[in-house]
Amino acid sequence: MVAKVYGPTGAATKRVLLVLIEKGIEFETVHVDFTKGDQRYPEYLKLQPFGVVPLIQDGDYTLYESRAIMRYYAEKCKSQGVDLLGKMIEERGPAEQWLEVEAQNFHPFAYNLVIHILFPSICGVTPDPKVIEESEAKLEKVLDIYEERLSKRKYLAGDFFNLSDISHLPYTDYLANNMGKEHLINKRKHVSCWWQDISNRASWKKVLEHYRAPI
Amino acid sequence: MVAKVYGPTGAATKRVLLVLIEKGIEFETVHVDFTKGDQRYPEYLKLQPFGVVPLIQDGDYTLYESRAIMRYYAEKCKSQGVDLLGKMIEERGPAEQWLEVEAQNFHPFAYNLVIHILFPSICGVTPDPKVIEESEAKLEKVLDIYEERLSKRKYLAGDFFNLSDISHLPYTDYLANNMGKEHLINKRKHVSCWWQDISNRASWKKVLEHYRAPI
Repeated sequence: MVAKVYGPTGAATKRVLLVLIEKGIEFETVHVDFTKGDQRYPEYLKLQPFGVVPLIQDGDYTLYESRAIMRYYAEKCKSQGVDLLGKMIEERGPAEQWLEVEAQNFHPFAYNLVIHILFPSICGVTPDPKVIEESEAKLEKVLDIYEERLSKRKYLAGDFFNLSDISHLPYTDYLANNMGKEHLINKRKHVSCWWQDISNRASWKKVLEHYRAPI
Repeated sequence: MVAKVYGPTGAATKRVLLVLIEKGIEFETVHVDFTKGDQRYPEYLKLQPFGVVPLIQDGDYTLYESRAIMRYYAEKCKSQGVDLLGKMIEERGPAEQWLEVEAQNFHPFAYNLVIHILFPSICGVTPDPKVIEESEAKLEKVLDIYEERLSKRKYLAGDFFNLSDISHLPYTDYLANNMGKEHLINKRKHVSCWWQDISNRASWKKVLEHYRAPI
């Protein structure tokens, strides 16, 4: 059975696509047109009641929340493709820790910058300079911690590429390329090296080639 | 080696304590006095650079982020005590999904209510009626989805108590008991039943008995 991935152009969905590509798992995509409100159709809300992407259907199995789907495939297909969890539970611990840091400490501020600077109209927000200023200030502090960490390890969780690196890719790409905030990455030597490394992976290039698009 | 848990009275730390108790894992606690700024001491920041709790030390192994620590012990001691991940990877999927829903859709709004209503001075915020109103409105919508889900399943992820239920306990306790927002729980029949079930577990009673305290 081939996994169906809903909403492939969504930033959060890109996390899922990256895992599927790194693991060599076959998939097909189902377009969800946010401009037409596809995500609010009753048939979609039955599968994803919060009305967002991603969502996967794999035979009878349905799952949502990008980081949960990432974990599901990384574990289900552990021995296939790139190991994204580490060999031992003691390696999965830091991968989970930095995946949580991404979700709790990096994403909220990066997301605020993206919706207020890049996509205010799509996201229905009025750009607020105070939110932008505060989010950038908080992100600076978080990235200072990343810089210190990456001065000692190749990747955030250790010496192997893992789910926590993947989870950072879509929003770090916005920061690094599209919105006048590239200094956040470029001025930090080790963060910049890490970004060069992970953004040059074949999986990310493939995602950008086929699914570059809105938030 | 006995696991050391830093900051046992913190709400996020309570998630970790619940897992340790449900699994029957021995632990000791290390008090972190937020009023004295213990979490900003250089020795603590070396272990937890974001300056928050929880943090665990288990021999030479150190880990932070409550939901990462929960996963670590739930998997490391899978066959010991209560199984909190499900027997098969297909059961872990929804547990992870609802753990992410808690982190992304429930926690931010519950947290806003708690810091603006219960702990503004400890958290250094000026209570903002607009934040309170908007957070409550968003939480209402999220809990409507929970109500629908819990009308069909005993627990959020299925028919077994798991990490996603544990993760909701500390902040749902604030909503249900301490801050004039109990209607959010009580007016929803199935959410209310679920809350009665999970909050009556011996593990939660033990946590409240020994570690009731600030945010």
